Amino acid sequence: MDGFVGVHLGAGLHSEKLRPKYKRLVYGACQKAAAILKNGGSALDACAQATAHLEDSPLTNAGYGSNLTWGGSVECDASVMDGCTLHYGAVGGVSGVKNPILLAKLLCEHQRQGLPFGRVPPSFLVGEGARIHALKYGLTTVPPTELISAESWKLHQHYRKKLRKYEEEQSQVASSRLDTVGAVCMDSLGHVAATCSSGGIALKTVGRVGQAAVYASGVWAQNAVGDVPAVASCTSGCGEYLVRTMLAREGALSVLNDNRTEVSLHDCMRTKFLESPFLHDVDEKMGGMCVLKYNPSQDIGEFLWSHSTTTMCVGYMTSADTKPVFRLSRLSAEQPIGKCLAVEGTVFHCKRQTRKRPASSSPLDPDIEDDDLSDTQEISNPEDFNMSAHSKAEIIVSALHPDENSDKCQ
Amino acid sequence: MDGFVGVHLGAGLHSEKLRPKYKRLVYGACQKAAAILKNGGSALDACAQATAHLEDSPLTNAGYGSNLTWGGSVECDASVMDGCTLHYGAVGGVSGVKNPILLAKLLCEHQRQGLPFGRVPPSFLVGEGARIHALKYGLTTVPPTELISAESWKLHQHYRKKLRKYEEEQSQVASSRLDTVGAVCMDSLGHVAATCSSGGIALKTVGRVGQAAVYASGVWAQNAVGDVPAVASCTSGCGEYLVRTMLAREGALSVLNDNRTEVSLHDCMRTKFLESPFLHDVDEKMGGMCVLKYNPSQDIGEFLWSHSTTTMCVGYMTSADTKPVFRLSRLSAEQPIGKCLAVEGTVFHCKRQTRKRPASSSPLDPDIEDDDLSDTQEISNPEDFNMSAHSKAEIIVSALHPDENSDKCQ
Repeated sequence: MDGFVGVHLGAGLHSEKLRPKYKRLVYGACQKAAAILKNGGSALDACAQATAHLEDSPLTNAGYGSNLTWGGSVECDASVMDGCTLHYGAVGGVSGVKNPILLAKLLCEHQRQGLPFGRVPPSFLVGEGARIHALKYGLTTVPPTELISAESWKLHQHYRKKLRKYEEEQSQVASSRLDTVGAVCMDSLGHVAATCSSGGIALKTVGRVGQAAVYASGVWAQNAVGDVPAVASCTSGCGEYLVRTMLAREGALSVLNDNRTEVSLHDCMRTKFLESPFLHDVDEKMGGMCVLKYNPSQDIGEFLWSHSTTTMCVGYMTSADTKPVFRLSRLSAEQPIGKCLAVEGTVFHCKRQTRKRPASSSPLDPDIEDDDLSDTQEISNPEDFNMSAHSKAEIIVSALHPDENSDKCQ
Repeated sequence: MDGFVGVHLGAGLHSEKLRPKYKRLVYGACQKAAAILKNGGSALDACAQATAHLEDSPLTNAGYGSNLTWGGSVECDASVMDGCTLHYGAVGGVSGVKNPILLAKLLCEHQRQGLPFGRVPPSFLVGEGARIHALKYGLTTVPPTELISAESWKLHQHYRKKLRKYEEEQSQVASSRLDTVGAVCMDSLGHVAATCSSGGIALKTVGRVGQAAVYASGVWAQNAVGDVPAVASCTSGCGEYLVRTMLAREGALSVLNDNRTEVSLHDCMRTKFLESPFLHDVDEKMGGMCVLKYNPSQDIGEFLWSHSTTTMCVGYMTSADTKPVFRLSRLSAEQPIGKCLAVEGTVFHCKRQTRKRPASSSPLDPDIEDDDLSDTQEISNPEDFNMSAHSKAEIIVSALHPDENSDKCQ
């Protein structure tokens, strides 16, 4: 069976000027995951590698180039959930680990192991202990300052100066780099996984951990059981709000019991986030999420994204496609951020295969050339959705065009 | 209206030898909370002060005298949820803060405040950042080694030696000090709150954070809305399992829609914990929880506790009572730990009052004399449940006697 990967660069405010760079980044992340899936690798591996690729880019607020804390350090949160084992692994407030998502994945995988004396392997490590653990298991660690990019340092200085002056330019700062990145994948066995990774909000308090490390808030994944489809989700936005609303789990579970996936995701984002009693005292609710749903009995999958932020940047492909699709989703000009929603999505079909996953997979690492991008599809409007003929992707509901049919403002 | 406090010393393995000490500790914690409630203080204050009292005791695995990490340090987790605001605050892996629960409470309370530039106050701080935050807000910080008790140091040396020898005495070590402590309170306005605090499992990996810091896993609290009763809960046991099952939230929500509270708690502990698909690969499932439920329209409250560990130590009183009730609940000898449940509980009535909570409360801090304990009720069997005449507590269902009617083993 073909696999599927969907990635996002966060719900936030993405500059049109950087569109070619975002596109290239999405391309690389999708291709990394697709190569793993094509080779029979697991959804968990594919998700983690796609997210690690995003972490390595200075464009994203994850890993290298993350937002800096008030104290000027990079402190990362990341988590994974494996739909196959229902295990979870997370790191919070970790400095000096090149790819926090790989450490979260290692913790998730180690959940299977027992320890002597009935001790239980940790699923959630924070701070310096997390870094030491990474070192012990051979993950790449670096001097913490090496994760600071020129751009993030410049932004940090800029914000601190502003904050000191106490100029009330809230919207600019608040909405610019909230963007936890993430990925959802399905592998050739129909198993699903989800990952997310974040540097947290700019100027955050040292030691602050956001939803990207918190169970049920950052990611959710569960394989299909009987008639219940497989589902995987990852969230982005204001961490505190996403924790309180446990949006990853809520979003994933909401689409399981309704064939109108886009309607149920929309309802969930509205009732469990924008109108949530847990955010009764919040004016602008900044959040977004991606959801992958797959129904094995029908060989039909859906990939959806929704956001209340100005933009959300996504990409996706099946492992049978040669190029991913890129989409920079945007609220319309009259939709106030944090109060309105865009919901979009696509359907994909997966060709069944009889071969089993190889015992040991050696995923390809595709070289990504700039000129490859000439073939990357880009959709400017959901009506244009058109994945390769092989995967037969199509727009779920044209009514989901955000400009025309996104939910009414509160 | 009278308030109510229920506290517990953890689901774990409590020694009969230490019963008088446990009793005195429960007495002190309950009296601290009851004094605050009597004086019109909030459920949040009462919960936090009761838990801080438990943290200060070397008997508990929280605050001073916590289990040590593999590296020999004390690293605490704690969290609170306020049913009034639905806000949450938590600290994870924090060293050198005398009362982690007070820092969690501060973060919870600060959730109400906005920060310049649309920044959001942190609800969850870990490690050194958490300690710095405590210092900034005037909470008591101490050199981290001051939180190591003579007993916890001795145990640490003992366990490490054992682990080095790799003798397979799993049950002894694993079940001895899993015990996150906690409290649930209701104040004179009928508002509820829940707190928990833990040093984590002995010899835990440095940086490991357990359920006591994780949203929906350690505590849950929500005030009554319309016909839906108020509910508050706190969990204890193996942190990783309690995170995966989000047991605090599951337990709290399970009792809301069923008048047979003890049955619904029992069903929840069975289906959402012992038989949870999220623990499909776990043999012994060690956990416990306390739940407070209050139905304002009937002026009736219930306080229940359930555990799959050998013992669970609880105490409770209304603010109109002079002494708390103490209970050391125990699985029967033929019930294997981690596979069977005890469920017990009590009903309480609250006298309505017309006065409102004073704007500024100055809670009494009762002196606790040893000989006061002579009046502390102790129940050795649920049939004996009998709170003071004022609160008219009574056993909910005699069928809940663990020796006779706890659930069948899996």
